[in-house]
Amino acid sequence: MRVLSMPGAYRIGIAGLGTVGAGVLKLLQDNADLIAARARKPIKVVCVSSRNRKADRGVDVSDYEWISDAAALADRGDLDAVVELIGGADGVAKTLIEKTLENGRSVVTANKALLAHHGYDLALRAEKNNARLMYEASVAGCVPVIKALRESFASNTVSGIYGILNGTCNYILTQMRESGRGFEDVLREAQEKGYAEADPTFDVEGIDAGHKLCILTALAFGVRPDFNALQTAGISQLGAADINFAGELGYKIKLLGIAKLHNGMISQSVEPCLLPAQSSLGAIEDVYNAVFIEGDFFETPLMSGRGAGAGPTASAVVADLIDLARAGSHGGAVPTFGVPAAQLKPAKIMDRGETESRYYLRMSVLDKPGVIADVSAILRDLHISIESVIQHGRDPDQPVDVMITTHTAKQKHMSEACARIANLACSVSKPCLMRIESGL
Amino acid sequence: MRVLSMPGAYRIGIAGLGTVGAGVLKLLQDNADLIAARARKPIKVVCVSSRNRKADRGVDVSDYEWISDAAALADRGDLDAVVELIGGADGVAKTLIEKTLENGRSVVTANKALLAHHGYDLALRAEKNNARLMYEASVAGCVPVIKALRESFASNTVSGIYGILNGTCNYILTQMRESGRGFEDVLREAQEKGYAEADPTFDVEGIDAGHKLCILTALAFGVRPDFNALQTAGISQLGAADINFAGELGYKIKLLGIAKLHNGMISQSVEPCLLPAQSSLGAIEDVYNAVFIEGDFFETPLMSGRGAGAGPTASAVVADLIDLARAGSHGGAVPTFGVPAAQLKPAKIMDRGETESRYYLRMSVLDKPGVIADVSAILRDLHISIESVIQHGRDPDQPVDVMITTHTAKQKHMSEACARIANLACSVSKPCLMRIESGL
Repeated sequence: MRVLSMPGAYRIGIAGLGTVGAGVLKLLQDNADLIAARARKPIKVVCVSSRNRKADRGVDVSDYEWISDAAALADRGDLDAVVELIGGADGVAKTLIEKTLENGRSVVTANKALLAHHGYDLALRAEKNNARLMYEASVAGCVPVIKALRESFASNTVSGIYGILNGTCNYILTQMRESGRGFEDVLREAQEKGYAEADPTFDVEGIDAGHKLCILTALAFGVRPDFNALQTAGISQLGAADINFAGELGYKIKLLGIAKLHNGMISQSVEPCLLPAQSSLGAIEDVYNAVFIEGDFFETPLMSGRGAGAGPTASAVVADLIDLARAGSHGGAVPTFGVPAAQLKPAKIMDRGETESRYYLRMSVLDKPGVIADVSAILRDLHISIESVIQHGRDPDQPVDVMITTHTAKQKHMSEACARIANLACSVSKPCLMRIESGL
Repeated sequence: MRVLSMPGAYRIGIAGLGTVGAGVLKLLQDNADLIAARARKPIKVVCVSSRNRKADRGVDVSDYEWISDAAALADRGDLDAVVELIGGADGVAKTLIEKTLENGRSVVTANKALLAHHGYDLALRAEKNNARLMYEASVAGCVPVIKALRESFASNTVSGIYGILNGTCNYILTQMRESGRGFEDVLREAQEKGYAEADPTFDVEGIDAGHKLCILTALAFGVRPDFNALQTAGISQLGAADINFAGELGYKIKLLGIAKLHNGMISQSVEPCLLPAQSSLGAIEDVYNAVFIEGDFFETPLMSGRGAGAGPTASAVVADLIDLARAGSHGGAVPTFGVPAAQLKPAKIMDRGETESRYYLRMSVLDKPGVIADVSAILRDLHISIESVIQHGRDPDQPVDVMITTHTAKQKHMSEACARIANLACSVSKPCLMRIESGL
């Protein structure tokens, strides 16, 4: 074991030195005095682990002991906590966190996938070993929504959470609306700017937002995080026509993670929705994230900020470290998901088909007499009430876009309507269906 | 001493049963199970104190011991914490809090005036006696900005805070803009709706917002709260002409509390400002509060929500109680203002005259040839550069409104310009001067 040069320091090891890991080192170096004053002791990086020792990270790593096997950090008796920034729902990140908690040491992580899949088991392990599992950085970057739900809003029965949780999607949707360009084109630009990964699937198909929503659902409703119980839809099917129709109706399209409580049952989804352009969430643009929360006493607080990037994410990681350093050995008092893990119930998830909403339905059809009559008949047969119909221009026998908004309808009926419309002879492509969340 | 019926409960006394106090009782009753699960023990109200025992508060108070002298709560050996909701910067609230802390018991308060005037002394007392002083409810109701600055953003050097901190003013300004009505008329309506006090001075003159800003300044910059070092201006001088000119320029008028760091010096003010109508703070309307924070790593998080009212304020009070109950006897770990009180420095406040901003200047003048030439000469002599001038309509020899916006200028020069303009023969009333905060 290493002789500690700084008695009384809070000693950490960091696994994973990508963008966020380098950001954490830079923040701990740049603001060392401020952090020591606030944490009441210095936070000292003892050792780091990363695959590539030679990479230029824009930060000096020469003072830190270099560990080649990240999982070995779990057994370091000279660490108070381990920061896991490797990522992934399984593999070395999972092993490292499990072993660290079992050794009675605390963990700070930004790993949303791991928490969404294994959060319950990890919370049990943390509490059993009187360690803490901290994850502010896993959702919405610098927006302190984890602490808010776990602590600030702990006295409320939360009835709904609405989050713009993926900056990549929000950037793409903002650019599509502002520039009139298509999804593929804007995605390519986002990749060039570093706002989207080379393989953008996790972001644009709503999986990343789904991981985050699972964590928020667990905290808000006292249930076990369960990614497998969540259906996600992304934004890759949206076209310029949808952006334009939404604008015409006074809405913007946002990829929303929504979780609501209905008499003990939870509805949850990640999908593109229409929401009023002038609403508080409608105003959140570009790479910003935001979470809007409904509770029985506090009503409707909103928190927003940059949801990703080295600085904002590192801020959240170091906030967790300051919490741990301040609490010292008494850290077990705030449960991982707000209530003791043993009290977390399996989530009772509503059948998605039974959830109700107003809907937006856009179809591409050949412009022939009787098309709207055919569609109207399908909706009537499924007891769906039409609120408005828009078809711009005429182009006989050519594909045109027709947009319908409905009054409140069940998801299963809307889904069936889409299938029937797709089967009409005049139908050119699969209709696009989105919820309208007008109450925000 | 009373025999406790609930071993292991966190035992509190509440002083002051006005709107917020009754809200706290209702919240603790309605959500008792939820709160006990999250706090890991029940929170039990042992005794209450209020002047009027008979008032109908819409909540059952028959189970609580009634104490006629609020200050006596400080000496109750059977309480873990005292909740102070009496209010006022001095008097019984101050005595109660001081004595409670001296007895080594924690305090939860919503008393912004007391903290703005005596926060440093109280923080010293709390730490000396290993007690905690909690005050989330003192600023912005349900918006957890105290915890965010003290914990979530603790790793950042904060460079600026911009807050809409007074719901009464924000409601009045929103109504003036939407209805075109004057200040007095809207104020009367706000009083009828219960959004403004019978004596509205503290709200409309910026004093309430000033108390709150002092608290945020202390937390953000690690300085002692000092209300006497703050100049406040309110909204009672604003006319419909100002609202209209602002709208025409794409701005809204908001009463902003602003604190910024400039090379170790702090500028702070509470005053009506013009800010872009489309900005995140410009979108905050009616009784909502919001705080926008700039830091070196997290960039620009924003938090908003209802800033007053029984439910939101009670939520914040009970969040503090849950924090205390969770921490148990290890509660001294998070310092009152983010750093140990002994490290809080006296704030070095910049001379207000030296602060720089763009400015809006509206004057009522007799419509005569040469007026704008006279005004332009005054501004030129003070090295103030004009950005735009608007005078709508002509009405020879009658009072008309003329509006000027400037490029960046020093406050002392603008103030001197106002005095000189007021002395012009054509001047009908004192000019209205407001900062333009276009960077938000």
